[in-house]
Amino acid sequence: MIDSIRGRSLLSLDELSKEAIVEILDMAESFVEVNRRSIKKVPALKGRVVASLFFEESTRTRLSFETAAKRLSADVLSLAVASSSVKKGESLRDTIATIDALGIDAVVLRHRSSGAALQVSRYVPHVRVINGGDGLHQHPTQGLLDAFTIRQILAERTGTSGLESGTAHFEGLRILIVGDIRHSRVARSDIAAYATLGAHVRVAAPGTLLPEDIATWPVTVATDFDDALAWADVVCLLRLQSERGSGTFVPSLSEFRFTHGLTVARARTLRPETLIMHPGPMNRGVEIDSRVVDSSACVVERQVSNGVPIRMAVLYLTVAGSHEGVQL
Amino acid sequence: MIDSIRGRSLLSLDELSKEAIVEILDMAESFVEVNRRSIKKVPALKGRVVASLFFEESTRTRLSFETAAKRLSADVLSLAVASSSVKKGESLRDTIATIDALGIDAVVLRHRSSGAALQVSRYVPHVRVINGGDGLHQHPTQGLLDAFTIRQILAERTGTSGLESGTAHFEGLRILIVGDIRHSRVARSDIAAYATLGAHVRVAAPGTLLPEDIATWPVTVATDFDDALAWADVVCLLRLQSERGSGTFVPSLSEFRFTHGLTVARARTLRPETLIMHPGPMNRGVEIDSRVVDSSACVVERQVSNGVPIRMAVLYLTVAGSHEGVQL
Amino acid sequence: MIDSIRGRSLLSLDELSKEAIVEILDMAESFVEVNRRSIKKVPALKGRVVASLFFEESTRTRLSFETAAKRLSADVLSLAVASSSVKKGESLRDTIATIDALGIDAVVLRHRSSGAALQVSRYVPHVRVINGGDGLHQHPTQGLLDAFTIRQILAERTGTSGLESGTAHFEGLRILIVGDIRHSRVARSDIAAYATLGAHVRVAAPGTLLPEDIATWPVTVATDFDDALAWADVVCLLRLQSERGSGTFVPSLSEFRFTHGLTVARARTLRPETLIMHPGPMNRGVEIDSRVVDSSACVVERQVSNGVPIRMAVLYLTVAGSHEGVQL
Repeated sequence: MIDSIRGRSLLSLDELSKEAIVEILDMAESFVEVNRRSIKKVPALKGRVVASLFFEESTRTRLSFETAAKRLSADVLSLAVASSSVKKGESLRDTIATIDALGIDAVVLRHRSSGAALQVSRYVPHVRVINGGDGLHQHPTQGLLDAFTIRQILAERTGTSGLESGTAHFEGLRILIVGDIRHSRVARSDIAAYATLGAHVRVAAPGTLLPEDIATWPVTVATDFDDALAWADVVCLLRLQSERGSGTFVPSLSEFRFTHGLTVARARTLRPETLIMHPGPMNRGVEIDSRVVDSSACVVERQVSNGVPIRMAVLYLTVAGSHEGVQL
Repeated sequence: MIDSIRGRSLLSLDELSKEAIVEILDMAESFVEVNRRSIKKVPALKGRVVASLFFEESTRTRLSFETAAKRLSADVLSLAVASSSVKKGESLRDTIATIDALGIDAVVLRHRSSGAALQVSRYVPHVRVINGGDGLHQHPTQGLLDAFTIRQILAERTGTSGLESGTAHFEGLRILIVGDIRHSRVARSDIAAYATLGAHVRVAAPGTLLPEDIATWPVTVATDFDDALAWADVVCLLRLQSERGSGTFVPSLSEFRFTHGLTVARARTLRPETLIMHPGPMNRGVEIDSRVVDSSACVVERQVSNGVPIRMAVLYLTVAGSHEGVQL
Repeated sequence: MIDSIRGRSLLSLDELSKEAIVEILDMAESFVEVNRRSIKKVPALKGRVVASLFFEESTRTRLSFETAAKRLSADVLSLAVASSSVKKGESLRDTIATIDALGIDAVVLRHRSSGAALQVSRYVPHVRVINGGDGLHQHPTQGLLDAFTIRQILAERTGTSGLESGTAHFEGLRILIVGDIRHSRVARSDIAAYATLGAHVRVAAPGTLLPEDIATWPVTVATDFDDALAWADVVCLLRLQSERGSGTFVPSLSEFRFTHGLTVARARTLRPETLIMHPGPMNRGVEIDSRVVDSSACVVERQVSNGVPIRMAVLYLTVAGSHEGVQL
C-alpha cells in the first residue's frame, strides 16, 4: 500500500492506504478556498508542465484537469487524439516518448485500454502519471472527488469541516452503487475509496451488469433494489455506457429504467437525508429521471465543482510533493 | 432597454439603448491603443475565467474572443464541440452546468439554435453570457465591431477620433445591407446597432432571401439594387450561407452574383467615399468579386482587427463591470 | 544567401548561409540550459503573439513549437484546420488575413502545399513566417534540430560543447540519408543544413523513391546500401510516407524493409560510434526495426528534445531579433 502520493504517480485507488486518501482530501480543502476567490490562482506549479493526453473524448474530466493545472499556474500541453500522429499509426509508447522529450513534469492520461496508465508510467518512470480513466479499470480522481463530496456535505450537516471530521463520517456509512458496475471504472474507484475509508458498500444491478468476480470485491450485492434504496445513506448512480457496449447487456433502456432507474417514484421512497450522486454525463430518463436530477438531494454539480480542488491537490502532491514551502 | 452592459450578459443588440452601445464603442477605443503596443496585454481580468463554447465551427470569432480574453489576462477554457461529451448525448443544460461548476466568470457561446444564449443565461444566472452567434437570431459583437469600424473610419476622415465624434457620424448615414438577410444573424445585429445609432438602413436581396416579417424591421427595402448602391454611404455584404441552406433560395450562385453580387462593374458605380464591408468568411466571386475585396474601399481587415478591442470591451464591461479602478 | 534570420522569416534552409545556421545553433545552446531548469520559462517574448496554423495533422511539431513559444512567455493562437472556416471554403489568403488582423508577431505554418510558407510571407510581409513544413519542399526547423543534435553529441564525445566546436565536427562528416527521399521535406532540409555545414551527404533509396533531379542536389547516390552503411558516421532514416502516396512507389512494405530497412542484422554491421536518427513518427518494422529504435545508437528522443530549444531560438531570433538586451 502507498501511504502518500507525494512525488509519485496516481494510477489506482486500490493501492492507496487510508492515510494517502485522507492526505489528498485534506489538501483539497485548502484549494476549495482558492476556488472561491475572485482571482482563482496560486503560483504553486509556475513553470511546471502538465501534459493532458486524452485518447477518449471527455468534457468534464479534461477541462477539470486543465483548469486545476492552470489554477496552480502550470503550463498545459493539451493533446486530443483527433489532431495527433496516432492517426499515422504511431504507437502509444512512441507518442509518450515524444511528449516526454518536450520536457514535462506530469501527464494526465485518458485511454480506452485498462492498464494504459501503468504502462505509460513504466515507459517514463521519471514523469508523474495521473490516471484520468483507463478502460474498465480505474478513474481515481473521480473516486476521490466523490469521497470528498460526501465528506464535505456530511461535515456541513454537523457544523464541522471536512478537515476536522477526518474519516468519522465514513465509519459505517451505507453507500449503494447502482447500474452498470461491469463496465464502470468509476464504480471500481468509488468502491476502493469508500471501502478504504470505512464505509459499507452495496451494489445493485441487473445480473448481466455485474462483473463475474464480484464475490471478491469489498461489497455486498443487493437482492432487492427497493430495499437497498431504503437502506442507503448515499446512492451513487452510474452512466449506462452504451458507447462501451452495455446496451447488449440490457433488454432495452426502458426495461433498465423500470428495474434499476432512479425514477421520481423511487426517489420519493428515499429518506430525506439520502444523497444522490452521478459522475456524469447523465442519461436523463434512463438511469435517473430528469426531475430527480433537479432535486436538492442530487449533488451532481457539487461533484463537478469538487473535481477542480481534488485535481489541484493530486497535481500538487504528485508534482511538487517533494518541495516544501510552496506558496499557496 | 438596457442602458449599460456593466455586470450583465450580452445576448442581443435589440435590447441595448444608444447609451449602452456608445459605452462599449468608447471603451473599445482605449483597447485599440493596447493592441498597438508591442506588449499587447493588460492585467484587467487576471485570474478570471472565460469559457469559450463553440458548438459551431468558427475561425475568426473564436480566435478573436480568445485573443481578447488573453489580452485582458483572463484564463480561457476552450471547448470545441468535436471533443465534447455532447457527442455522448449530453444536454446543453448539463454541459453548461458542468462548465459552470468548474468555476467561470463568463461564457462565450456560439450555437446553431436561435435563443441558445438566452436559454443558457437562465440556466446559470450568476454567469455572464456573451452571445457569440445563435442560429438566425443575433451576433451582437459583430454588430458592435461593424458600427465601431464605421465610426472609426468616418472620424479619421474628419480628423477627429471616434471617441470625440460620439454618434454624430451615424445621424442620417445611409447604410445598405445586401444579400442573405433571411439567414443572417449578422444582418439582425447590424441593423439593430445602426438603427439605434441613428442611421438609415436599407436592405437589398432577392425576395426569397428576405425574412417574411421584414415590414416590421427598422429598414426600407430597396426596389432596385443599382439605385441602392448609388444611395449608400456604406455597403455591407453578407455571406451567402449555403451551409444554412440558403442555396435552395437562389437559382444558382452565378444567378445570385448577377443580380446581387458586388461585381467589379458595380463597384465602379459607387461613390469614391463609400465603404464596403463584409463580416467574412467571404465567397469571393459570389457576393463579392475578388478584385473588389482587394480595393481600398473594402475594410474587411479593419473589421476583423476591430473585433479584438470590441470583444475586450464587452468582456471587460460584463465581467469586471462592477469593479472600479481596474488597471489598464 | 541570408546571413542571419534576425527579424526575418524562416522559409527554407536552402537560402541560409553557414553563419545564419550557426547563429541559430549557438542560440539554441542557451535555451537547452533553460529547458533543464525546474521552471522552464523566460520572459523573452512576453506579450508577443505567435499563431500556430497547422493545416496538416502533427503531434510533435505543433506541440514542440507551442511549447517553445510558451517557454518564451509568448501567447499562442492555435488553429487546427478541423475547427477552422477553411471547411467553409475560405481561401488560405483570407484565413491568413484574418489571423493577421487579430494582431500577431509570427505565424508557424504547416501546409500540404509546397511553397505555402513563401506565399503567406508575401500576403503578410510585416509578420514573421516560420515554415513548419510545406508539402514536399522544406521543414527547416527539423533540419536545424538534426544538425544541432549531431553537433551536440559529437561535441560531448570530445569533451567540449557544441558552442565551442562550431562547425568543426561537420567538416568531412559522412551522413547517409535513407529511404523516401522523393516525398521528404525533411530530407531536403537536412541535406541543405548538412551540406552548408561542410558534411558529405549520401542518399540511399530504391530508384523510385529518388527525385528525378537528384543529380543537381549536393549529394552522392549510394549504389549499395550495405556499403553505404559501413561508410556512414550518421544514418538518417526517413518515414515511409504512405499517407503521401509513397506506397505506390514500393512493391510492398516488407520488400522495402528487405532492401532498405535498418534491420537488427544491418544495425549490427554499423560501426559502434555511428549515430542512428529518425525524424518520427516511425514505422517500426518498416524503415527501422523496433529493437534498433531502442538501442543506444538511436538518438530519436534527443532529436525531439532538441526541437524545443531550436524552435525557441528560431522564434526568438525572428520575432525579437532586432531588439537588443532581451532578458533570458
